[in-house]
This record gives sequence, structure tokens and C-alpha cells, in this order.
Amino acid sequence: MSSQAWWQQPAKAIDQAARAQAQARQQVLTKPSGSLGQLEQLAIELAGMQGRELPQVDAVSICVFAGDHGIAAEGVSAYPQAVTGQMLANFVNGGAAISVLARSLGAHMQVIDLGTATALPELAGVKHLTLGKGTANFAHTRAMNMEQCSAALAAGSDAALQADALNCQLFIGGEMGIANTTSATALACALLDCPVADLTGPGTGLDHAGVLHKIAVIEAALALHRPQLDDPLAILQCLGGFEIAALVGAYLAAAQAGITVLVDGFICSVAALLAVRLNPSCRAWLLFAHQGAEPGHARVLQALEAAPLLQLGLRLGEGSGAALATPLLQMACNLHGEMATFDQAAVANRS
Amino acid sequence: MSSQAWWQQPAKAIDQAARAQAQARQQVLTKPSGSLGQLEQLAIELAGMQGRELPQVDAVSICVFAGDHGIAAEGVSAYPQAVTGQMLANFVNGGAAISVLARSLGAHMQVIDLGTATALPELAGVKHLTLGKGTANFAHTRAMNMEQCSAALAAGSDAALQADALNCQLFIGGEMGIANTTSATALACALLDCPVADLTGPGTGLDHAGVLHKIAVIEAALALHRPQLDDPLAILQCLGGFEIAALVGAYLAAAQAGITVLVDGFICSVAALLAVRLNPSCRAWLLFAHQGAEPGHARVLQALEAAPLLQLGLRLGEGSGAALATPLLQMACNLHGEMATFDQAAVANRS
Repeated sequence: MSSQAWWQQPAKAIDQAARAQAQARQQVLTKPSGSLGQLEQLAIELAGMQGRELPQVDAVSICVFAGDHGIAAEGVSAYPQAVTGQMLANFVNGGAAISVLARSLGAHMQVIDLGTATALPELAGVKHLTLGKGTANFAHTRAMNMEQCSAALAAGSDAALQADALNCQLFIGGEMGIANTTSATALACALLDCPVADLTGPGTGLDHAGVLHKIAVIEAALALHRPQLDDPLAILQCLGGFEIAALVGAYLAAAQAGITVLVDGFICSVAALLAVRLNPSCRAWLLFAHQGAEPGHARVLQALEAAPLLQLGLRLGEGSGAALATPLLQMACNLHGEMATFDQAAVANRS
Repeated sequence: MSSQAWWQQPAKAIDQAARAQAQARQQVLTKPSGSLGQLEQLAIELAGMQGRELPQVDAVSICVFAGDHGIAAEGVSAYPQAVTGQMLANFVNGGAAISVLARSLGAHMQVIDLGTATALPELAGVKHLTLGKGTANFAHTRAMNMEQCSAALAAGSDAALQADALNCQLFIGGEMGIANTTSATALACALLDCPVADLTGPGTGLDHAGVLHKIAVIEAALALHRPQLDDPLAILQCLGGFEIAALVGAYLAAAQAGITVLVDGFICSVAALLAVRLNPSCRAWLLFAHQGAEPGHARVLQALEAAPLLQLGLRLGEGSGAALATPLLQMACNLHGEMATFDQAAVANRS
């Protein structure tokens, strides 16, 4: 790999002047200072990213990345692997949760198939890349080679650039892949040097025995790959998923292009952590939608110093939590842009 | 008072059959069961309230009740009392936070002036009721007499019936009144028999010394009124505000008319607690938007066994937190109504 890979290029700089203007404006709107809580900081951060005192979030891009995981062979998911492919059809047919939410938001939607275990007919509306029949089983070997990893990162970058071409102000990545909480948990343990039992949860619905088995599978895999787990790119190849690598590439490219990213759940947050480890300058472009039910999520958000907007016990993925948080960003911008100032409204400020 | 006051009439019954249909539907939508967290229960509760398997929240009514508080004379607010009247103009001129949010939601908005300390010219779009120049100072006497209390309850009921006449599926009450966290805190302490220091907070922005003074004022007032604080209606008259009494009336009438209520912040939650104490049957019609920054809010929500949707550090009032949570209700309905079932999408359910 080149010493100057594309993802190492710096993220677009935050416009500190616009950010400061927005911060000053928040102090003179007709409300007690600070009374809109996290929404005030959201508007200020969006102003810095968009380079204007009055930001807006009108055009939203949602991209769902799907891929299968070899580790599913270890019996770590409550659902059969065929579901990954079946859900691809559901995404483009409009019946999945993220499809409904994209319609509600009027968001542009992309669906990328990075490689499923069961062969699929070509689906209208799905971009089939097929980097493999899912990743290799990382209980035995590394999940993907460097060529596959580069291709997945590039697929994510392409999706972010497509959002940029459509002048979207917000990029939401989603994921689908049976067994991908196992991959994400292994990645988080390697990145944070955490005990596996602290971060492992039921995913889509394992029982207690299933969670114990999942812990044992991840512990064994971490022991197997330990000598290679010395940098984030190697960690991604050993333990990752195609869709997780694509999210990493999408987040990095969005930050370089200057598009705000709204990070979804546990798996997306692990991808965000990988992106920040690969290129810390991207952190300023990441907002965090929610803290989900998976126990590792809180720990990953903490490592990212993230302040998630929602905490609703979500554990679906697909980008659904980020879609659900999007109206909060839009209303934070509306409040910031449309509220009267104390002077305009002839309202007395505090005595 | 009659032994059969209007607010003692039972709330509309929840449609248990529709609720059960919605619960069954949630089990067969193409997602792991439970993975949409609190949104699943929201859709089920709304189905029971609306009497149909597939509820919707298209038409939203927001009513802001404003009133001044005699207790402001004790120096318990960071803002001058004239702000209550000034903000009434800001509400109807579109510059207040709730005005911006009502526009964002396409919500119907009512603004009711129940009595301000400074005389106001008639404002277009404001319903001036003027039950007094604000309440009396409850540090010395009861805040309102029974006639004023009845009129405020009726004003709230009128607003809820207006929402019903417009076929609104959701009623949001908001409040504005300098010093009304002092009234709400005193009410909460009397209703929950809690130490004043546990529930008292900075309101719109008192410093530490200001909070200590506010605690002393409330403690003295509770001692003064103690002999009268034996039922919720007496508590409301001794310690309440006109806008708080109107919220109580609105919540009770909405529950009787069968309109879902989305309760806003600390002051509205205290009004909800009063409504439930006056008529427990209304509880089934109350959803709770958020847990705000005021320390008493968590305790009041706990007493109501409420599961708030947002926790964003809000402390503005006006109904703003409820407006911010409204898209979550709408998207919960969209997901519930528009997602494909496992059968429809030919997706395998869990193995």
C-alpha cells in the first residue's frame, strides 16, 4: 500500500468564522441561553461544517451497505444467512424499515451489495459489487485480503461522492449483514483493548447461551489474529466485514468532501472508530444519532467522545437510528435560522 | 364544587382489540422483534388510542398557555416578569422556538393569555382570558381562588376540544410564565411529599445562590399552606399557576375526547401528575416527550411511570420538547404501517 493512500488525505477544514457567528447568534435568540440543550451545539457544529451562519439539512443521502460474514458459520446469529440477500430485495422494494424512513424524510437512497453468501439475481436499484461470497470465516483466517478491503473502502467513497454530487448536506450509512455484530464486537475489542465479555451482546436476538458462545468465538479469533492486530487497517482486514469497510471509506470520503455524517448504531459506530483511527481529521464531520441496545455501543461512543441524540433501545441497524434522528438536525437548523433575536422581538433579556 | 365535576368523567376507553392487532403486527414486520425499541410500543399504544391497527399522526395541535405568577415578586427568576407578555407577541409573530417548530410540523397553533402582570394590548392570534394580573403571591396567600381555577381548567378544556374539532390526533400543551418552575416545583413537592432541595433547579438560569433562595421561598410557602394541601385541587389553587391549571384541564379533556397527549417538560409533567391525581383514567392517553434539565423532572416522570422519548438537556418549555419528539411518533406510525411483513417480503424469520 502507498504511504499516501486516499483515505489519509485530510478532511475538509471546519469554517471557524461561521461556527463563531452561529455561536454568537445562539446567545441572542429569544430563549434562555442553553435552554435548547444539545440542539444549540448541533446548529453551531453544522454552521462550522457548512461554512455559513445559518446551516440547513434539506438534502439527505442514505446508503445501505450489505455483505455476508464467514463467521456466521460459527452459529453466532439468530437468523439464517440467506436473510442478507432477502433484505436487499426488501430495501429496494420499499418494505424495510430504512426504506420507510427514507420515504418519510424524502431522502435519496443507495443500496450496495458487497457480496452475499447466496447467489442473487441482479436486483433493480441495487449496485452489485460482489467482492466475494461474503468474508472468510475469521475464526480460521483473516476476513478479507487487502484487495477486497481496498475495494470496499472505495465503494464507500463512491457512495459518499455520489451524495456530494447530489448536493446532499447529510450522509447516513446503514448496514445489513447476518453476524455483523460479531465482526463489529471483535473489531471494537481489538481497537479498544477491551475484554470480549464486556462488549458482546445479543445482536438481533441471541439468548444467554448464544451470547456466551459468541464471546468464546470472538475470544478465540482475537487470540488467533493477535500478532496481526497492530494497526487499524490490519484489524479491519482480519476481523471486519465488507459493509463495515465500506462504511469506513464512506465516512472518510464524506469528511474529505465536506459532508456531515450522521453515524447510526453499534456497527456504524465501530466503523466510525476505525475511520478516526485511520485519519483523525474526519472526527469533526461525525455526528452520532443514538446509543443502541448492544452493550458495546456505549463503550465505543465513549471512546469517540460522542454525544448521541437518541436512546430508544434500537438495535436494527440499516441506518434506521440515524434516519430517526435526522428531524432533530433539521429542526435544530430551523430554530437557529428562524427564531427571532431579543432585539427583533423586543423581548427583555435576563435582568 | 359539584361532586361530579366535568374533569371527573372517565377518559375514553382504549380499544384493546386494535391494540392487540397492532401488537401482533409488530411481531411479523421484517425486523428482529423488539429491534425498533420504544418505537414499537409507541405504535401499539397509538393503535389502542386511535382504535385502528394502523394509527397515524398527521394533524397536530399545539396550544401555548401563558400566565404570570405572583411568586415572581420573591426574586425567584432570572428574567423580568414583563417577558411573559412580550413572549405572547413573539409566539404569534412566529419568532419563538415553538412558533418555528409548529411551522416545521405544519401544526395548528393556539395561544392563550390567562393573565399577565403587565397590561397588554389585544394581540391578533392570542385569546386573552385575563383571569387576573397573574396569580397571587403564594408566599403569602393562595395563588388562585376556585373561580379562577375553574376558569383556567375550562380554558384548557376548550383548547383540547378545539383540537378535537380540527380532527387532530395529537395534542401538545406548552407553557410560558416567568417564575413558573417555582410554582411547578412547589406543586411537585406537595404531590410527591419530596424534600424541596431534591426537586429545585435553576429554571431559566438562576445561579447557585438563586437556587438556594428559591428553595427557601418554596419551603416557607409549603409550611404556610400545609393545612390546605390535602387534595390535588386544593394543592393546585394554593401553589399553581393559571397556565398550569389550564394544562391540567387540557390533558383531562383531551383524554375524555380521545386525543393523544404528548406531554412536554417539567412544568407540563407536573400538570400531567395533577391531572392523573384528579382523574387516573387520563393516564392512558399521556405520552411523554422528554426528560429535561430541571432536576425535579426525572422524579415526576418516575411517579408517572413515564418513558420519555428524548433526553437532550432541554429547559425551554413552550411545548418545544414535545414538538421536537413529534416526528418520532410520526415515523413510528409510518414504520408500523408501511413496513413489509416477513411473508410479504419473502424474508426468513429467525431460525
